[in-house]
Amino acid sequence: MVAIQGIKGSFHHQVAQNYFGVEQEILICHSFREVANQLKNKEATTGVMAIENSIAGTILPNYALIDTFDLQIIGEYFLNIDMHFMALPDQSIEDIHEVHSHPIALLQCANFFEDYPHIKLVESSDTAFAAKQIKEKQLKGIGALAGPIASDLYDLEILAKSVHTVKSNKTRFVILKNKDLEKAELSNKASLKFELDDTPGSLATVLNVLNNCKLNLTKIQSLPIIEQPFQYSFFVDVVFEKYKHYEKAKKLLEIMTTHFKVLGEYQAGEPQE
Amino acid sequence: MVAIQGIKGSFHHQVAQNYFGVEQEILICHSFREVANQLKNKEATTGVMAIENSIAGTILPNYALIDTFDLQIIGEYFLNIDMHFMALPDQSIEDIHEVHSHPIALLQCANFFEDYPHIKLVESSDTAFAAKQIKEKQLKGIGALAGPIASDLYDLEILAKSVHTVKSNKTRFVILKNKDLEKAELSNKASLKFELDDTPGSLATVLNVLNNCKLNLTKIQSLPIIEQPFQYSFFVDVVFEKYKHYEKAKKLLEIMTTHFKVLGEYQAGEPQE
Repeated sequence: MVAIQGIKGSFHHQVAQNYFGVEQEILICHSFREVANQLKNKEATTGVMAIENSIAGTILPNYALIDTFDLQIIGEYFLNIDMHFMALPDQSIEDIHEVHSHPIALLQCANFFEDYPHIKLVESSDTAFAAKQIKEKQLKGIGALAGPIASDLYDLEILAKSVHTVKSNKTRFVILKNKDLEKAELSNKASLKFELDDTPGSLATVLNVLNNCKLNLTKIQSLPIIEQPFQYSFFVDVVFEKYKHYEKAKKLLEIMTTHFKVLGEYQAGEPQE
Repeated sequence: MVAIQGIKGSFHHQVAQNYFGVEQEILICHSFREVANQLKNKEATTGVMAIENSIAGTILPNYALIDTFDLQIIGEYFLNIDMHFMALPDQSIEDIHEVHSHPIALLQCANFFEDYPHIKLVESSDTAFAAKQIKEKQLKGIGALAGPIASDLYDLEILAKSVHTVKSNKTRFVILKNKDLEKAELSNKASLKFELDDTPGSLATVLNVLNNCKLNLTKIQSLPIIEQPFQYSFFVDVVFEKYKHYEKAKKLLEIMTTHFKVLGEYQAGEPQE
């Protein structure tokens, strides 16, 4: 059972299908916190969670959930977010007077609808929920903005493809499970969290260690606003060729940093074109 | 004239007042892009723009605007985002059947309203806009979620103070102007952008240089998803005691990195308690 945020037809559902296959059973959750909770309670064995987006950046609250619920990242998946304008079959754009979707999706597609001032933008809780409502209530004259999986699942016709303004909108999802710290010698990537005292050059020293151990940094993010002065937190992703190199770096970081934590060790995903 | 995103009574207006004083004239803009545009067109001499938040993280699209519109950061301001529930005077919470606010504000205060299931959450374009509508249309039975400046400005009564779930919600705003590259020798902080080739240890080398020049890192952010493989972008903030140390580091970074750009040199702001 894979816990996902959102209903069937959502982008999280798309990732679950692409990663685990279409046969995989899905556990619908109404929030990211619920995904974390279902993993903790062992209602689900794995979960899918968006973690960063090429337009909006890192979703820090999800890092906090992974950390506080002690979840483990076991994989990652990059999805191109492709927003289609869809409605019940046999209608044209002129027949549509309202489009329903998640507020962020509406925002990302607002430019497209400037050419159709007769269409009112209406907020919905989720991209897929808007599509589902149209199907279930057979709502004529209402459109949805959602991913291709939603049009398939709810038998909607695509009136316009890829109507989002910024075309390159990639989201990185992590695949999660409840932590049980199995050794993952096939991994070539790890997500780490640590804190450093504000002694000059402390981060440079850590990066030198990673470099000497042949680890390569693919992401670094300091926590945005320092609550405790002179104390800094970092989220870091590293890739490596040999697990033993990573193991050596891990031992050194445990000594050099405080609150060192491995959020996950896994196989790196491939960004789509 | 200070360009702000949002109408009077918004958190951006609050920052403009705190930073420039209450007498300062305000130019209302409906998007961050419009703020950037008004600065470029010299309709405004300065602007206020949210850049990162302790819950949601960095607002990357705003970094992109500063970069592409060639704006200059000349200051920063940290504001505690305090969300109050307000309505026309002489009503109790029981009299209110709808609360209007920005979708993110509704989300951040959703826990509070679980105790009041008779109150429907309704999306509005802006926290302050909801407050303004209530005042102008004398809407009884409707509440708004907004900052303290909105209740003052639109004569609303606060029914419940600080109703947001996560109490520590700090936002960092930058103060912007059109770039004219004046020398800012009183600065003790700078925001930089640069790119690095994916040669092992290239970031560590840059941080060693900053450290050798006595600069201290207060923020580092790699761009979230790498569009061009083997090419990394970074946004970095540094603080320093002596401008000449920073000048030396700047010269070195110009040689060591590609697309090196100073987004601003300014006096560091003080986070509130």
